[in-house]
Amino acid sequence: MATIEKIAFFGLGHMGGPMAANLVAAGFEVTAFDLSAAAVQQAVANGCKRGESAQQTVEGADVVILMLPSGDAVKGLYLGARGILQALDTDVLVIDSSTIAAGDARQLIAAAGDRGIRAIDAPVSGGTAAAAAGTLSFMCGGEAAAVESAKPYLQAMGANIFHAGAAGSGQVAKICNNMLLAIHMIGTAEALQLGVDNGLDPTVLSDIMRASSGGNWSLEKYNPYPGVMEGVPASRNYEGGFSVALMLKDLGLAMDTAAGSASSTPLGALAKNLYQLHGGDTANAALDFSSIQNLFRRPAGD
Amino acid sequence: MATIEKIAFFGLGHMGGPMAANLVAAGFEVTAFDLSAAAVQQAVANGCKRGESAQQTVEGADVVILMLPSGDAVKGLYLGARGILQALDTDVLVIDSSTIAAGDARQLIAAAGDRGIRAIDAPVSGGTAAAAAGTLSFMCGGEAAAVESAKPYLQAMGANIFHAGAAGSGQVAKICNNMLLAIHMIGTAEALQLGVDNGLDPTVLSDIMRASSGGNWSLEKYNPYPGVMEGVPASRNYEGGFSVALMLKDLGLAMDTAAGSASSTPLGALAKNLYQLHGGDTANAALDFSSIQNLFRRPAGD
Amino acid sequence: MATIEKIAFFGLGHMGGPMAANLVAAGFEVTAFDLSAAAVQQAVANGCKRGESAQQTVEGADVVILMLPSGDAVKGLYLGARGILQALDTDVLVIDSSTIAAGDARQLIAAAGDRGIRAIDAPVSGGTAAAAAGTLSFMCGGEAAAVESAKPYLQAMGANIFHAGAAGSGQVAKICNNMLLAIHMIGTAEALQLGVDNGLDPTVLSDIMRASSGGNWSLEKYNPYPGVMEGVPASRNYEGGFSVALMLKDLGLAMDTAAGSASSTPLGALAKNLYQLHGGDTANAALDFSSIQNLFRRPAGD
Amino acid sequence: MATIEKIAFFGLGHMGGPMAANLVAAGFEVTAFDLSAAAVQQAVANGCKRGESAQQTVEGADVVILMLPSGDAVKGLYLGARGILQALDTDVLVIDSSTIAAGDARQLIAAAGDRGIRAIDAPVSGGTAAAAAGTLSFMCGGEAAAVESAKPYLQAMGANIFHAGAAGSGQVAKICNNMLLAIHMIGTAEALQLGVDNGLDPTVLSDIMRASSGGNWSLEKYNPYPGVMEGVPASRNYEGGFSVALMLKDLGLAMDTAAGSASSTPLGALAKNLYQLHGGDTANAALDFSSIQNLFRRPAGD
Repeated sequence: MATIEKIAFFGLGHMGGPMAANLVAAGFEVTAFDLSAAAVQQAVANGCKRGESAQQTVEGADVVILMLPSGDAVKGLYLGARGILQALDTDVLVIDSSTIAAGDARQLIAAAGDRGIRAIDAPVSGGTAAAAAGTLSFMCGGEAAAVESAKPYLQAMGANIFHAGAAGSGQVAKICNNMLLAIHMIGTAEALQLGVDNGLDPTVLSDIMRASSGGNWSLEKYNPYPGVMEGVPASRNYEGGFSVALMLKDLGLAMDTAAGSASSTPLGALAKNLYQLHGGDTANAALDFSSIQNLFRRPAGD
Repeated sequence: MATIEKIAFFGLGHMGGPMAANLVAAGFEVTAFDLSAAAVQQAVANGCKRGESAQQTVEGADVVILMLPSGDAVKGLYLGARGILQALDTDVLVIDSSTIAAGDARQLIAAAGDRGIRAIDAPVSGGTAAAAAGTLSFMCGGEAAAVESAKPYLQAMGANIFHAGAAGSGQVAKICNNMLLAIHMIGTAEALQLGVDNGLDPTVLSDIMRASSGGNWSLEKYNPYPGVMEGVPASRNYEGGFSVALMLKDLGLAMDTAAGSASSTPLGALAKNLYQLHGGDTANAALDFSSIQNLFRRPAGD
Repeated sequence: MATIEKIAFFGLGHMGGPMAANLVAAGFEVTAFDLSAAAVQQAVANGCKRGESAQQTVEGADVVILMLPSGDAVKGLYLGARGILQALDTDVLVIDSSTIAAGDARQLIAAAGDRGIRAIDAPVSGGTAAAAAGTLSFMCGGEAAAVESAKPYLQAMGANIFHAGAAGSGQVAKICNNMLLAIHMIGTAEALQLGVDNGLDPTVLSDIMRASSGGNWSLEKYNPYPGVMEGVPASRNYEGGFSVALMLKDLGLAMDTAAGSASSTPLGALAKNLYQLHGGDTANAALDFSSIQNLFRRPAGD
Repeated sequence: MATIEKIAFFGLGHMGGPMAANLVAAGFEVTAFDLSAAAVQQAVANGCKRGESAQQTVEGADVVILMLPSGDAVKGLYLGARGILQALDTDVLVIDSSTIAAGDARQLIAAAGDRGIRAIDAPVSGGTAAAAAGTLSFMCGGEAAAVESAKPYLQAMGANIFHAGAAGSGQVAKICNNMLLAIHMIGTAEALQLGVDNGLDPTVLSDIMRASSGGNWSLEKYNPYPGVMEGVPASRNYEGGFSVALMLKDLGLAMDTAAGSASSTPLGALAKNLYQLHGGDTANAALDFSSIQNLFRRPAGD
């Protein structure tokens, strides 16, 4: 498989940086590109080659992996007369792990297809800890054969690889999952606060609901009430983790997707607006999304 | 323990009937009472003694267990000059497994305390299947010693026994749990429908979210989308299970509790109102609560 | 009409005080009672007679008017062996202007009817300014003849008298109105903030919506955005007016009524919860209810 | 003003058709274009000249007026090498009365400005009846001088002309207004149903709330409860009027605008989702938007 060992990696942020490093660790030759010089320098320290420009980064690449912050960023890099798509050989495989609108993903994959290039959408779940540990989940959309071809690279970065369906389906699965996550996070925060306001201990209540039909990932793995669980953002003033701002981005994509398919998502829409109420304060926007608990907690003395 | 073997059991419905039978199977002498002659007859067939009247049912009882449909029903049986509380010896233990308002539970336990009688609230979770199998969860409120005394009886009917806190806390834990359950059930239905409306297979999407941060009891144990999971109400036209009407009752108690403690529960309140929209049609009210999926599914042909 | 000129008035708060004063001004002999000595003293200064006790207050009364803070307060005063109902002659007319649950109102009117006494529920709208000016609106429930008999007294305190229907209907009309008020107040706040966040002047936007289909009482008479309208709470830091705490009380009654009739009120329920989020801070609870605008305004600098 | 009498009018639907006819009636020479031959034929019958193509329609025009169904339709007609913008003289005034995203409106006005052409956004409120009667409200965004120049044409079609602010502000005002309209329409439907479910007559309750603080345009001008008001859609099975589908379009624009400005609109978002639940049935989507009352009414017999 010597012919497919060269990877061009775009986007070296909190997620992309460790993902690129894990590809290096797995034995791939990774040329890395980012607009931030510091991010590139860190990638080089992790064993990546420095991409001097977008065009130079993809030269000779067997695989292109993107981990960019928005659909506009992906389209700006990818499409147009000077986009990298025009510079790729037809046997290159493109893996877009950015979280973007499903419609944008379909457009990008179709544009690749027009040039005879295989492409998949493969957004991730798991956060920065899983990115570092190489235990991300990938939700893939596209042709089954293309998803199969991507596995060696995805396995270097993640523990679970799902084929959600046709092009764009990875993005749909991601935003369905994150909308549901937002809903049960807020629901868990409401339930815990209701219990506390009525005299219950949040740890005892968490134990009861975990063993009952209220059980869910937010309650069991990421409890939002301070002091209930060690090692989660709630026990370190909601620092680190998955920010309110990023959750708002994903909920925005979910609402756009729902509008496009004329789907009704009343709890999802309310969840987005509660996160917007909470994150309208910029200090809150940077906190972990489990900080929504603070929206329901009383001011001291009340 | 011969002195505590006689149990007076009130309320022989879909839950109380099998609970009384499990007490008999565990070796207790159970005198059973219900306003429905058919329910009593079934209990007798299961090995209970027939309670001829409320007063006669509690004669000589060591333990009184209630499984009644409402706080008014419990208060009507329990309080007042002709209530059973007046007929009990002071060494009797009262276990109220009815789901009622926490305030009512506190009132009843205080009334018992005034007579020197130990009483706890111990509502259940798990539904009719768990009642039959003897695997209910009990959420108990009251003095630790009283909860401890109740364990031999509760263990005959259930698999998990939680001490949630002081009097009424079992009720609070129950409605917190069921509010959270309603929220993630509706959230799961919204997310699955959003995926299906965008071309995903509900089984594939369920598998992905179960392995990701969207995981929750509704998705994993009680999937609301028809055809995804065998043996759940969604795969038998939403018949059986936990009805919309009963979920509405519990959500009503949750809203009352939230009003009493000035707690804000926006998702809980919306969940109640969506169940009310769905259950406003009496045919829907009798269906399992996972039938909320139908609120989001398109009419055929749309 | 000399025989019906004596009025017993209970409840001399921000509303009841000026209402009693207006009855005095209209020529009635008013005996006033309140648990607050200061309130009674003010009433005496306004020309009322001092009620020494509840029983003494109703002695010889032709009409009893109640303006109390809760259904429990009304029931405590009214019912039971020592309640004032037992002390009334059968030709007395009882007017309960307290805002209480419709079910409580029906119970009180039925109890009066059992003694052959005419009673109506007649809650008000208009706030303290209308109470002082004698321009309240009364929403009456009860027999048409009883409502007709009440008019001379109600006209001394108000400008509009509506007969909403049978016993309790005044309360239902009141909470339907106030639920709708809460909804369009919050909706107006959301719309104005959305405009401001997109560069519009709130006064210009208010003018446009007032002339268009967005028009509503909150926008036109009680604009919640500071600086748009003079003489409203928004232009005096939301002081005075109708407090968040009182709106929450009325929304609680609306939710109870909706639960009783199995009605679905999703916007009403969300409005209540948004007011609860806002009013969970006790400083906000005392502000005028148009201060909900602050829930949507950005912190300075954001 | 002979030099500005020639108008090119694009979009001859239920709104655009009568608007063009009113311009003819006011003495302007109107060349009309639409993709529907039937719509053009009707316009010709109303005195318009037939536009043979988009390019021919704007030949010699002093003013261009657009009334198209979407931002994509406007951009498709307007922009690009073959768009009509390239064919316009620099002294032409462009008035876009389509309801589109504020961002699209800003883009179009900026593109016109790049060519030295004055353009404004001027969406309307008032519906088909106001379009026919020439009593529309126009909400204008753009330079004050350009809005002033547009008045003679707008006055031929409408009764109220508002200058909301800079480019795009007309669109913002329109969707703020319509979001608020959706909220008080649903709120009114909830309140009326709550009253009816508790025994009140909807006409009596409407009268009371109209005279009280619940008053709003939906209640007073467009009552959604059948039988309360003559001449409104509710009294003709919700036929005609402003469709659920069009309200959903406007609420979609409102949600996009709110996402763009990070504004929280919880009632607006819930209103959109309730309309989506209602309009998910295609038969309902074509009904007037006051048919949301049916979401809250019980099935017969319940």
